Amino acid sequence: MKFKRNERIGGIVKILSDSPNRIFTLSYFTQKFNAAKSTISEDILIVKNVFEKLKLGKVITIAGAAGGVKYIPKVSSEDAREFLSELCEQINDPERVLPGKFLYLIDIIYSPQVVSKVGKLFATYIDYSSADCVVTIETKGIPLALATANAMNLPLVIIRKNSKISEGSSLSINYVSASNEKIQTMSLSRKSLKEGSKVIIIDDFMRGGGTLKGMQDLMSEFKAEVVGKGVLISTNAPEKKLIEDCISLMKLVRIDAGEVKTIPNDEIIK
Amino acid sequence: MKFKRNERIGGIVKILSDSPNRIFTLSYFTQKFNAAKSTISEDILIVKNVFEKLKLGKVITIAGAAGGVKYIPKVSSEDAREFLSELCEQINDPERVLPGKFLYLIDIIYSPQVVSKVGKLFATYIDYSSADCVVTIETKGIPLALATANAMNLPLVIIRKNSKISEGSSLSINYVSASNEKIQTMSLSRKSLKEGSKVIIIDDFMRGGGTLKGMQDLMSEFKAEVVGKGVLISTNAPEKKLIEDCISLMKLVRIDAGEVKTIPNDEIIK
Repeated sequence: MKFKRNERIGGIVKILSDSPNRIFTLSYFTQKFNAAKSTISEDILIVKNVFEKLKLGKVITIAGAAGGVKYIPKVSSEDAREFLSELCEQINDPERVLPGKFLYLIDIIYSPQVVSKVGKLFATYIDYSSADCVVTIETKGIPLALATANAMNLPLVIIRKNSKISEGSSLSINYVSASNEKIQTMSLSRKSLKEGSKVIIIDDFMRGGGTLKGMQDLMSEFKAEVVGKGVLISTNAPEKKLIEDCISLMKLVRIDAGEVKTIPNDEIIK
Repeated sequence: MKFKRNERIGGIVKILSDSPNRIFTLSYFTQKFNAAKSTISEDILIVKNVFEKLKLGKVITIAGAAGGVKYIPKVSSEDAREFLSELCEQINDPERVLPGKFLYLIDIIYSPQVVSKVGKLFATYIDYSSADCVVTIETKGIPLALATANAMNLPLVIIRKNSKISEGSSLSINYVSASNEKIQTMSLSRKSLKEGSKVIIIDDFMRGGGTLKGMQDLMSEFKAEVVGKGVLISTNAPEKKLIEDCISLMKLVRIDAGEVKTIPNDEIIK
C-alpha cells in the first residue's frame, strides 16, 4: 500500500504520540509506509515542526545503531498554569470538605483526562532520564502514577498496604502516616523491583510526608535509589515535611469546614 | 500563526488521538489553526483516511449543533490476535506460577504499554454507547480499568475493600471471593456514583466470578445498571461462573506447579 505525505505525517504523529519516549527506527517507518528513508526523514522534520509549533512536546532524533526518533511529552508553562488554575477552581468547592478536614478528590484524581495531563506535567518537571520505574502506593495514587509511567515510558510498581499471596514473597516495613497517626504496614513483592533500581515516587497528596518517607525507606530496603518525587497536592502546614525535594503541582493553603483553598504551585511552573 | 496542510493534519491527529471519544467542533480547529471551515473539513477527510488505512480506529463526524468530529479507538482482529498471542507467550512461563497456583501477573497488568492496548481492546469488544462510567475494585484491576475508561472517555470509579474516611459516607456489602473462600467487604463512596448510572465493570482476573458478582450486587445497591463486563483473563475451570456475559480477552486453560497455559479467547476476537 502507498501513502501520501499527508497520510504518512498523520500516521507518524499517531504512532509517536501513542508511545511517548519510545524509540522508533527509521526502518520501522519505511516498512510501515513502504517509502524511502529520505522520504521518511523529510516527514519527520515536518512532524518535529508540528509538535514545536503546537507546543505538544518535543520530537527528537537519536543517532547511532540504536537510534531513531522519539516523542517527549512536555507541557508549556502557559498550558500548565491554565490547567492547574482550572483544577484548583474545581477543588476549591466547600462541599468537598469532609468531616476531619479531609478533601474529597477521587472524582478528580480518577478522571482519565485529568490524570493524563498530570502525568505529562510530572514528566515535564521531574528529571527521569536515569529512572528505571515509577513507584506508588495503593490506592488513590495509582491512576496518577500510571499516567506518569506512561508519559515517561517506564514500568509501574505498586506498593501494597498488605502483602498479597498472588504477588509472591514480599518485603514489608512499618510507617507512621501523619494524617491519622497510626502505625501502618506497606509491602512490596520482591519480584517487582530489581536491586539497585532508580525510581520516581508519585502520590496524590502529601501532608506530613509520612507515607512518602515510608516509601523512601522501603526503597532503601530494595537498595533502590529515589531519583525524583512528585505529588499532586501538598499542604502548606506543617511547613516541615518528613522528606525533601518533593515536587508538588498544587498547594493546599487552607482547609476548614465550609472553606478550602488550593493554588497552583508557581515555584515549579517554568 | 499559519499552518501548512501537513502540519494541520499532524495537529488534528495528535489532538483527536490524545482524547478518544471526545467531540471536537470544527470551530475548535478553525481557531487553533487559523483556517477556514472548508479547509479544516478537507483536512478531516484526510485524517479519516489515515486512521482507516493504518487500522488505527475510526474518526467519525457528528452532525448537528453539538456536532463535530471524534476518534473511536478500535483494534483490528489481526492486531488483537497478534497482541494477545504475544501476551500469552509472556504469561506461559512456569516461573510465574506461585505457591497456591496463583499466577504472577503484576509486571504485565501494571505495564503502561500493555494496559493501554487492553483498554482499546475492551473499547472494541464491549458496547459502551450508553455507559456513564467504568467501575473496578482495588487494586490490580485499576490500571486496566483506567486505560479502558480513557479509551471510552468515561470517568473511572474504584470500589475499595474498606470504606475510607477521605471519601465521605459509603455503602458496603459483603461477598465471598472464590479464590480464597473468605467473606470480604467492598465499599463505595456514595458521592462517587449517581443512582441510575449505567456502568461497565472491568477486572484483571476471574476464577469463580465471586468478586465480579459482588461488584454487580453493589451496583444494584446504587440502583446502577451493569451494561458491560470485561476481564483480562478468565479460567476455564470452574466452567460455571457466578456471573454471565462477561467478556474475557484470554483463557487460562491450565495451571500447576511448573506449568501454565493461557490462550487468546478466539470467541471474542472478530
